[in-house]
Amino acid sequence: MTRPVRAVIYGVGEMGSLLTRLLLEKQVEIVGAIARSPAKVGRDLGAVAGLGRQLDVAVTDDAEALLGACEADLAVVAVGSYLETMAPHFRLCLAHGLNVLTLEEEVFYPWRRAPEQAAELDQLARANGVTLAASGVQDVCWALAPAALMGTARRIDRVRGRSTWRGDEFGPAVADYLHLGWEPDEALAELAGMTDGMTSQTSLETLAAFAGVTPIGQEVRTEVMVATTDLHSERLGLTIPAGRVRGFAEVVSMTTAEGIGLELEMAGFIHAPDESPVNHWWIDGEPDQFVGSEDFDGRLLTCTTLVNRVPDVLAAPAGLVTVDRLPLPRYRPGPLLIDP
Amino acid sequence: MTRPVRAVIYGVGEMGSLLTRLLLEKQVEIVGAIARSPAKVGRDLGAVAGLGRQLDVAVTDDAEALLGACEADLAVVAVGSYLETMAPHFRLCLAHGLNVLTLEEEVFYPWRRAPEQAAELDQLARANGVTLAASGVQDVCWALAPAALMGTARRIDRVRGRSTWRGDEFGPAVADYLHLGWEPDEALAELAGMTDGMTSQTSLETLAAFAGVTPIGQEVRTEVMVATTDLHSERLGLTIPAGRVRGFAEVVSMTTAEGIGLELEMAGFIHAPDESPVNHWWIDGEPDQFVGSEDFDGRLLTCTTLVNRVPDVLAAPAGLVTVDRLPLPRYRPGPLLIDP
Repeated sequence: MTRPVRAVIYGVGEMGSLLTRLLLEKQVEIVGAIARSPAKVGRDLGAVAGLGRQLDVAVTDDAEALLGACEADLAVVAVGSYLETMAPHFRLCLAHGLNVLTLEEEVFYPWRRAPEQAAELDQLARANGVTLAASGVQDVCWALAPAALMGTARRIDRVRGRSTWRGDEFGPAVADYLHLGWEPDEALAELAGMTDGMTSQTSLETLAAFAGVTPIGQEVRTEVMVATTDLHSERLGLTIPAGRVRGFAEVVSMTTAEGIGLELEMAGFIHAPDESPVNHWWIDGEPDQFVGSEDFDGRLLTCTTLVNRVPDVLAAPAGLVTVDRLPLPRYRPGPLLIDP
Repeated sequence: MTRPVRAVIYGVGEMGSLLTRLLLEKQVEIVGAIARSPAKVGRDLGAVAGLGRQLDVAVTDDAEALLGACEADLAVVAVGSYLETMAPHFRLCLAHGLNVLTLEEEVFYPWRRAPEQAAELDQLARANGVTLAASGVQDVCWALAPAALMGTARRIDRVRGRSTWRGDEFGPAVADYLHLGWEPDEALAELAGMTDGMTSQTSLETLAAFAGVTPIGQEVRTEVMVATTDLHSERLGLTIPAGRVRGFAEVVSMTTAEGIGLELEMAGFIHAPDESPVNHWWIDGEPDQFVGSEDFDGRLLTCTTLVNRVPDVLAAPAGLVTVDRLPLPRYRPGPLLIDP
């Protein structure tokens, strides 16, 4: 006897709202929603997520009470990007016996960046018989797909990715982070200290895990991107004058024990009208290979890939499970069901 | 105690010669070579494969005697494309206790096209404790990679591939098959009867197996490609006049139980100087996705992917094993070793 998967939406920002919509499409039953903002708490999730209909799920800021009372299979967590911020939220879900599926980038592959925290969360998940896993655009597009392409190579010197994203699609906090409109020199000074290449690093480490190669060192480089003409963002309601910062690129270059270089450049910026986000990968070797996507919607692909991962996470062994240990992700044409 | 893998080269044509070179690069020990042509039999494999050096392996046409006497881990079989022709060769290897890795296209996924023959070979392989598997360009580039991309989708209406190949790179037999230089009407009449979309069909069926969808029907369409200017092939030493056939495209369209269409067009033709072979894939759905490679060298990728699959085949369970049941293919930077 199967029934629809029951989920708690943990974090109702831009991404949590989109995830809510996509999960409902797959007939997931939303049994609770958690947010901090007083502007959201107490309102119906349907309204907060902009669905235009009532879901009869009141957004609460009392995660402890909700997780203790609800009977959910998993929490879909979309709150922040770093494990330090996120670990308390993960702990709360795991301790209440909920599986966790998150788009949080650091837990996507935390074993080298935060091994102690990873081990602690792994232990907590095992102790509660549940799984902690992360997915998103990096799952297939920056890890599995290039790793599979490596499996066709005669010789590999370097694997290089370049992925770009619209700097105005992830809300105002991310737009601030990009230092839009700053003087290039000032932004570079700030950014060089702020960026640590976390998302690229964890993506490349997942790619390495899929491909069976061992990272042994890395460098992170930051480059600011400067507007050559005035650029307007409708979404943010701002114009970046020519000569000012329109975003930046973070480049992580890794060496591996096998002598293969791994590199991922992620560039977030306000796009000119004739530009579109791309996801390009090169294998420098024999043969030289290139595979690329244009009009690349990383934001949507993060949410759609994560939704397709729900059954994998529910079926995974207990513990912190990175995607290289999950089956090939599958498109889920029908409702997401569970056999309890 | 590991030692280098020992292989028999079964078929020393264009592909078998390239495979010989690539296997030697990975320090595989070639312990025998089989060919039919009197021009090859009795000569050293190094000379026949054009390696410019002696391998001290005499090419023989007595497969039975060689396979009975040699102590190889596997036979790398590159003789023909259809299971009907190839089954006797596979049987001979399996009966002598050799694993078989082949680029033969029909055995790549024979369960729908030739279920009885597949079952018989599966049984024979199991009885002898060895594996029969096929790999090639279709493994990753036409099956695994598009299937992984499907795992990122919110909705899929259709998955479409288009792969093109240089009609003069696979030897004179394939060039004849393309009806180069024929009148378009005459070629179309011949080709429509000759082509059954086998390679595309078995690739799409593998893609479907990776993606967990079930093909329920298919159509095959053939289109001739006509030269718009005179086209010269250096390799074949011929010129195709404008207005004559320069190759053809075979399009296989499948329906699935899940309502997703699968389509693969394979076009082999003499390329104009400004053309290069491509491998393009589209997902029509939400989001629409495209991922493409240019300068696509399917011939080389068939051989390099197959070589990377050697350890997977040696580690696979006994029986006929299609690639959807093997691990993610990996690049093999070092020598191919076995722990006997």
